[in-house]
Amino acid sequence: MSTRSRVAAVRERFGDLDSLLVTSLPNIRYLTGFTGSNAMVLITRRKAVLFTDPRYTLQSVAETAGSGVEARTVKGPLELTVVKKLKGLRKVGFESGTIGYASWEHFAKAAPLEPSKGLVETLRMVKSEDEIAAIRASVDTNSQAFAAAIGRFRFGMSELDLAAEIDYQMRLLGAEKPAFETIVAFKANSALPHARPGAAKIDRNGLLLIDMGSFRGGYASDMTRCLHLGAPAAKTRQLYRAVLEAQLAAIDAVRPGVKAGSIDKAARGTLEKHGLAKAFVHSTGHGLGLEIHETPRIGKGDKTKLASGMAITIEPGAYLRGQGGVRIEDTVLVTPTGVEILTPTPKQLTIL
Amino acid sequence: MSTRSRVAAVRERFGDLDSLLVTSLPNIRYLTGFTGSNAMVLITRRKAVLFTDPRYTLQSVAETAGSGVEARTVKGPLELTVVKKLKGLRKVGFESGTIGYASWEHFAKAAPLEPSKGLVETLRMVKSEDEIAAIRASVDTNSQAFAAAIGRFRFGMSELDLAAEIDYQMRLLGAEKPAFETIVAFKANSALPHARPGAAKIDRNGLLLIDMGSFRGGYASDMTRCLHLGAPAAKTRQLYRAVLEAQLAAIDAVRPGVKAGSIDKAARGTLEKHGLAKAFVHSTGHGLGLEIHETPRIGKGDKTKLASGMAITIEPGAYLRGQGGVRIEDTVLVTPTGVEILTPTPKQLTIL
Repeated sequence: MSTRSRVAAVRERFGDLDSLLVTSLPNIRYLTGFTGSNAMVLITRRKAVLFTDPRYTLQSVAETAGSGVEARTVKGPLELTVVKKLKGLRKVGFESGTIGYASWEHFAKAAPLEPSKGLVETLRMVKSEDEIAAIRASVDTNSQAFAAAIGRFRFGMSELDLAAEIDYQMRLLGAEKPAFETIVAFKANSALPHARPGAAKIDRNGLLLIDMGSFRGGYASDMTRCLHLGAPAAKTRQLYRAVLEAQLAAIDAVRPGVKAGSIDKAARGTLEKHGLAKAFVHSTGHGLGLEIHETPRIGKGDKTKLASGMAITIEPGAYLRGQGGVRIEDTVLVTPTGVEILTPTPKQLTIL
Repeated sequence: MSTRSRVAAVRERFGDLDSLLVTSLPNIRYLTGFTGSNAMVLITRRKAVLFTDPRYTLQSVAETAGSGVEARTVKGPLELTVVKKLKGLRKVGFESGTIGYASWEHFAKAAPLEPSKGLVETLRMVKSEDEIAAIRASVDTNSQAFAAAIGRFRFGMSELDLAAEIDYQMRLLGAEKPAFETIVAFKANSALPHARPGAAKIDRNGLLLIDMGSFRGGYASDMTRCLHLGAPAAKTRQLYRAVLEAQLAAIDAVRPGVKAGSIDKAARGTLEKHGLAKAFVHSTGHGLGLEIHETPRIGKGDKTKLASGMAITIEPGAYLRGQGGVRIEDTVLVTPTGVEILTPTPKQLTIL
């Protein structure tokens, strides 16, 4: 879908709205191509205008070309200009999930507003060919950065050192930035699903969990791999095999028309069979694209139906307090006939 | 000021409020010590409670110890719990400048709300001894990272490569992350005050502007330096000297009791004298601390009076389209008798 047809698709979903005020920057980028840090877009039935500040005069015109959205530079707070443009509109949809109170307060005085949470986000779930190519490039860069950083691993590095190395390699390979704070968690830390890297030295014997993502060309990637320093104990190998089996079962369940919740069920059921139901404390995955977390949520009971062109993560895990945790995560694409695993990094338990 | 006396200082500023709902994470960190990514704090005349989610149960109790704020873990969206606690309150202050509409909508149904923009931010302007030590450490790390990255500079690196190198060195030296997207701008790009690093190769002849900041221990630093590849032309040396003169004049004007606007005037007046008034297109500086941009704004006409303990940047610049731009920036501290320049990096125009 081109940016021009995206604006048209938004209008088709207006219902009884006469306009939509878009304030979420990822939604603005999706609809117009604009990548700056300050903008608002007002879409009426007749036209669509992007408002930004003088830093972005040239950039906004260049980036929005072909989107059907006119770029206009204004001085001072954007709200003051947008308020004037709202006058006379009778039902303005606004993004109630992401707009700030201060902006809303300005707009509420100017025209009748109607919350329209998720209108653009729903469109963003199914990716265009261009978007899929961008996600593919981001996933490849992320996997190359993983390989480069592991190649530079030395015993005795701290979790923080290795996280810094990963982020550096990403950047050298063309990523704009990490898609989230890179997780490097050794031994007991690997049992914390949201561990932050610390000064702990990575030395002999223990699980090493790395969860990393890149933004490249504006699009996110996300991958988790586990390594082991020294020979793993039998129970660790068992844990790893159980999580891998769950991950493969979940991927195997991915195809158009299937509910997101049933993907989660495939992973959860496998871990349950291994007596690890309680050790799996989060959802199986999430959509990704211009943001690292997008709809659909691949979680318990989620009724969203998967469709060809959705990019999602599949990342079951099992966390045993004291012993350690294992999570295995790929970025995958829903295809017309099933699924394509985008992440090229192998999934055997690597021994360092 | 300890975190305990900070909560007391907030209560002293209640006026006719009977409580304050704090939703800004930097404000929450300031008042309680909590560093997690999800929390709200309700301060009434009798007690103060921090609400967070189960990921942070142990951390929230440990970090808030001694702050006079009780940490409580709740399941599900924090809003749903806070709404219950608001019942019976008669005038709840809320942070109208930063709260999201969706949170506000929940709270507005539960109790009478009153906008109280900047209440905690005003307290945060004057730093405690601990905070000054943290800013000092952040500034030192930032300057060391600059020196290390310049030491690894090679002709032909791209702006992006050098930016990646700077961010990597920061991390190896103990910073959590860059305080903003590091600016590396060569030749004509240096004339764009908000340039983003690109694929342009840094080779012989031209101005190279680097604007970088670190977060270390939660506190920001900010520095800009210009280097020159090859021998600079006479007009470039003149431009550099004019900006340096303006920066020194502004620093010289810093002392307690002086209005922020008069610091800006000192820089602007000097550049005007050199015929560069129109080339200086931004403010002279800003406060910094738990955030990279804090009050006071050191800008035209700002009436905030400087006070001992404020940490601010002094960063005049002059930008000549086509030719290039120069900005020189230090982080400085307002002291009882005047000013201390925290940034240790020398300010002569370095030739590479």
